[in-house]
Amino acid sequence: MNVPPTQNHRILIAYNGARFHGWQVQPGDETIQGLLEARLAELYGTRIILHGSGRTDAGVHAEGQVAHFFAPPRIPPDRLPLALNARLPQDVRVLAARSAPPGFHARKSATGKRYRYQVVNARILSPFQAPFCHHERRPLDISAMTRAAGFLAGTHDFTSFCAHVEGEEDRVRTIRSFRLIRRGSLIVLRVEANGFLHHMVRNLAGTLLEVGLSQRQAEDIPRLLAAKDRKQAGPTAPPQGLFLERVFYGRPRLG
Amino acid sequence: MNVPPTQNHRILIAYNGARFHGWQVQPGDETIQGLLEARLAELYGTRIILHGSGRTDAGVHAEGQVAHFFAPPRIPPDRLPLALNARLPQDVRVLAARSAPPGFHARKSATGKRYRYQVVNARILSPFQAPFCHHERRPLDISAMTRAAGFLAGTHDFTSFCAHVEGEEDRVRTIRSFRLIRRGSLIVLRVEANGFLHHMVRNLAGTLLEVGLSQRQAEDIPRLLAAKDRKQAGPTAPPQGLFLERVFYGRPRLG
Repeated sequence: MNVPPTQNHRILIAYNGARFHGWQVQPGDETIQGLLEARLAELYGTRIILHGSGRTDAGVHAEGQVAHFFAPPRIPPDRLPLALNARLPQDVRVLAARSAPPGFHARKSATGKRYRYQVVNARILSPFQAPFCHHERRPLDISAMTRAAGFLAGTHDFTSFCAHVEGEEDRVRTIRSFRLIRRGSLIVLRVEANGFLHHMVRNLAGTLLEVGLSQRQAEDIPRLLAAKDRKQAGPTAPPQGLFLERVFYGRPRLG
Repeated sequence: MNVPPTQNHRILIAYNGARFHGWQVQPGDETIQGLLEARLAELYGTRIILHGSGRTDAGVHAEGQVAHFFAPPRIPPDRLPLALNARLPQDVRVLAARSAPPGFHARKSATGKRYRYQVVNARILSPFQAPFCHHERRPLDISAMTRAAGFLAGTHDFTSFCAHVEGEEDRVRTIRSFRLIRRGSLIVLRVEANGFLHHMVRNLAGTLLEVGLSQRQAEDIPRLLAAKDRKQAGPTAPPQGLFLERVFYGRPRLG
């Protein structure tokens, strides 16, 4: 029996997560992975399994999610974005596609990720920012938040900042960069690490917001990390402020 | 019989028009005016009529819509935004409120308006721009569009650029400024006039887009204006690219 040869494909995806139940396929719920696999199946006439660089939760956005899939090589990769976008709703776009070596794996080959968390610190949240930002009316002490981010950067066990997930036993990660940028009333938390645990960015954001509200001291962060106890850190900040900006593979980036 | 004294109030409103059937109250459809009047009635315990500076169509956004209403003076105007926003969905926000002289009328007192029309000129429309922009994949000749805008600026009869509306017999308006700004793939058409006819900005945008696609010459605009015939101008550009930016009253602006 001849098995048709397949080619590995790497795609770059942006999505507005507002109406989706996250990335990962779930029976009965609309998810980004489920939607893309359905459109790929139409395009190739066969079931295609799409592997993302990682899950994003319900309501979380992506500017640069990466995924790979094996498929017959009959569609040139540079035609894939147009072919898929024509079948996708406007809130999901394939930005780029290219062929990849057989060993490329969107999750396992990733060497890092960068996320952004957006907070509007103003009395009134604009209707145009509301879908993409968390709103905090009370004044935030950005310099205290920046100090707290400094304590979080580096290599630590982030157990205090992650939701428990089976199989995520090694909770040591390296935050390469954790910066706060203020643009008017918009405060952007941008964090890059070699990997992230479940809910990690939203838990970091929730804790930094407590520091910004003087409910917690920046200097308390080392103790929090050492406690390895999720209950001691701040709450999980809401999903709509979170964007997956980029996935790194230790080579020139896609797209 | 004593009639309770009423105070005129002026409010500044922003809304994401995506899910609304425009500004004006329509039985059975959700509209911005209808929503605000319902919330004002709750707040004051009596029917309140809200007068906007003008209608916006279904799907059109506003950053600075202005409206007035008469109501008992028992709620200090500076408390109105918080009181109303607490009752409103996130896609409608009252940005500011103040008391106004009895003679102030949001529509009749207006001395001008400024609109912005947003076009993304790129192969792929980002899911974050899609709700707020028109998408044109084919390359646009911005310098030709800018020339066309120059022919439209000034005082003209804009019959060729408006939908027929009963009572809008005088179709002479003065465009004080019509500029095109490019920011990467985003092209912004910003137009300020002493007043606008129904569909006027979207018809101007639709015609400029034809010029940008070389389907029409910029130098054809004076003939188009002189024809006073709607059928000769371009199509009505889609609503989601349009923002009412500001209403002018010949005094320091609100908010």
